[in-house]
Amino acid sequence: MTAQPFFRSRWVPAPGHVTELRGDAGLPGGFRAAGVAAQIKPSGRPDVGLLVNDGAEPVSAARFTASGAAAAPVLVNRQRCTLGALRAVLVNSGCANAATGGRGLDDAAKTQGAAALATGADPAEVALASTGGISQYLPVENVLKGILAARERLAQSGDVDFQAAIQTTDAFEKRANLSVELPSGTVRLCAQCKGAGMISPRFATMLCFVETDAALPAETADLLLGVCVKRSFDRATVDGQLSTNDTAILMSSGASGVRVAPESEDELRFGEALDALLRQLAVMMVVDGEGAARAARVIVRGGHQDGVEAAARAVANSPLVKAALHGGDPNWGRIVQAVGGALTGTAPLPVDVTIEGMQVCSEGAAIRYDEAELDRLVQREEVEYEVGLPGEGAETEVFFSDLSKQYVTVNAEYTT
Amino acid sequence: MTAQPFFRSRWVPAPGHVTELRGDAGLPGGFRAAGVAAQIKPSGRPDVGLLVNDGAEPVSAARFTASGAAAAPVLVNRQRCTLGALRAVLVNSGCANAATGGRGLDDAAKTQGAAALATGADPAEVALASTGGISQYLPVENVLKGILAARERLAQSGDVDFQAAIQTTDAFEKRANLSVELPSGTVRLCAQCKGAGMISPRFATMLCFVETDAALPAETADLLLGVCVKRSFDRATVDGQLSTNDTAILMSSGASGVRVAPESEDELRFGEALDALLRQLAVMMVVDGEGAARAARVIVRGGHQDGVEAAARAVANSPLVKAALHGGDPNWGRIVQAVGGALTGTAPLPVDVTIEGMQVCSEGAAIRYDEAELDRLVQREEVEYEVGLPGEGAETEVFFSDLSKQYVTVNAEYTT
Repeated sequence: MTAQPFFRSRWVPAPGHVTELRGDAGLPGGFRAAGVAAQIKPSGRPDVGLLVNDGAEPVSAARFTASGAAAAPVLVNRQRCTLGALRAVLVNSGCANAATGGRGLDDAAKTQGAAALATGADPAEVALASTGGISQYLPVENVLKGILAARERLAQSGDVDFQAAIQTTDAFEKRANLSVELPSGTVRLCAQCKGAGMISPRFATMLCFVETDAALPAETADLLLGVCVKRSFDRATVDGQLSTNDTAILMSSGASGVRVAPESEDELRFGEALDALLRQLAVMMVVDGEGAARAARVIVRGGHQDGVEAAARAVANSPLVKAALHGGDPNWGRIVQAVGGALTGTAPLPVDVTIEGMQVCSEGAAIRYDEAELDRLVQREEVEYEVGLPGEGAETEVFFSDLSKQYVTVNAEYTT
Repeated sequence: MTAQPFFRSRWVPAPGHVTELRGDAGLPGGFRAAGVAAQIKPSGRPDVGLLVNDGAEPVSAARFTASGAAAAPVLVNRQRCTLGALRAVLVNSGCANAATGGRGLDDAAKTQGAAALATGADPAEVALASTGGISQYLPVENVLKGILAARERLAQSGDVDFQAAIQTTDAFEKRANLSVELPSGTVRLCAQCKGAGMISPRFATMLCFVETDAALPAETADLLLGVCVKRSFDRATVDGQLSTNDTAILMSSGASGVRVAPESEDELRFGEALDALLRQLAVMMVVDGEGAARAARVIVRGGHQDGVEAAARAVANSPLVKAALHGGDPNWGRIVQAVGGALTGTAPLPVDVTIEGMQVCSEGAAIRYDEAELDRLVQREEVEYEVGLPGEGAETEVFFSDLSKQYVTVNAEYTT
């Protein structure tokens, strides 16, 4: 772990019962991992990772991209895996195995079988995750060699190498090593995550793997992962581009002997820790865009859930708002324009806009405010916009990154 | 008119019965216009325009932005104008009069009244259009002075000055001066248009004014404008950002004495000319983005209108697709990703992708193709993508521009 604390965003305070451990504290009891270089990436950097849960009664939960163009590994996981009782995860970077049709599914199945053999698991107990170029076929031979090499290096301290094998254009490591005090005892919570949005689509995708030695019932794991993903990765956008390969997997080994019973105080506390963990990772992904200068949060309140959702997404994905965020430009007219574009047919819409606590627009009209102070506020590393729509009861938030010239440079470059 | 022909896109062939006139041919009979500098723009360039229909029985039709944050002039037009029988249009650049609430409506009404007085029309017969900075109040005094000055200069040859007064960041003039042969006689068709998308939101918005000396029944004018706007401006996107001020107005003076009867061959021919006119203007707006290198058209075919529409918009507004277009990068995986992101829950989606006539993806999977040839094809000034979805019967198209570093530079600059 870097010198910087893991919980570094003002939007994600560290829960009082969570302690950050040193970066070399290793995986929770019951887990081993490894990462190796199998020459899938031309750079020769690590590109195959293996994660194994040795717990007696492994429990897991998973969430995947909703994309209609979901990649082969995602389809295989959904169709062939017992997602509540995974024993292993095989991951590769350097190739997404997306837009590869039937051959892609066959290739994925081959690597699943090999990883099962290598880890002593059933193929249905091995989940797959890939990230990299869309439309390229998986170099199966490289992955198989990677599996063999990784098997030899599986270790409780392997999370650092595993992280390296899933990372692509990430400018900084998104890895956590936490200790969580529950009423019934202390458990560990670790995560390895990659994602700089779809900022470089050759290495697209968000992948996140979370391990704990708490003993989670399968339905608890599924419930907590589902709720926490909705409040974190589902609320973050770099460029509004849904990946073909997004994957989040939570695995529980039970090695701590601390059981998290449904609807218990333990569950509540564990959920708080997982929630903070995933939200901080989501903010990190938003911060980590090539050339990104600032991260933002937009909160929209109003009377209709559909309306606040549409308005928040529209603001977060507006290239005009994002460019203004990048430039430290207080141009709030773009916020109004984006909201109006999302809520067509509602004119005149009495929208309120507040930036970093300073209201600039009331019921759709400009009001007097301290312009010099606003100029200063929008220079912050994290900028918060609040939008008020008519009515009460609905509220949502979206974290988003700015739009930089580097984004264009990276994404206008030749691919192959 | 520049040396370049008006009909210059391969996507908009000039109809055989339409002839391009010289740029100084002036407005159709029955119309006068003027454009003057009223110091609304700090640059001192023209910023107030007046357009008058002197026809005995003026006929008109109008279409406006659907934005929930529609600007004051749009609201005034909708609420107070007899849109089928407009006698005049008052336009200003340099201020959008948007996000200005009740004061904005009052300001707009004042200028409407003044323009009515100046042109001898009823206030309800004067439409308003503004373009410029959102959240700024209209400098009413400047507009009033502009009206007085413009009234003195109204002339049939005033279309060039009128065009100058509505233009903002446009890199080139979007003005047409056409002669149209109908079975019943020859009529004139002119247009003055501005818009570089929302590429610079201080001067946002698409405005388009079309004049003809044909005698159009009001319902014909409305029908034709509605259909042609749907096939042109509604199918164009620079950055997916709906403006607060978009306005298109068609005015007919009847001065030619050629009556275009409903459901006649005249109507068909006139409609074809208007359609080509607006489609070419729409492509021009897409081409005219700061730093734009290439324009594109995506055609999506499939079984469901909602599906093809969502997919086409997703491709056209994807920053990844647009950056690849800018760079002349044949990265078609981004097309698949964008389509998949729009059509969630449909995986595996058997999507076909063809670029400039070369198929690269069949039923969701990469196929073999001539990569060197594709590299060459995507360097063209106009690039066409075709996407095939399952089923038949639905089809749509969207014209779009690329995403350049200059877009970010322009839009990250300080506003005030």
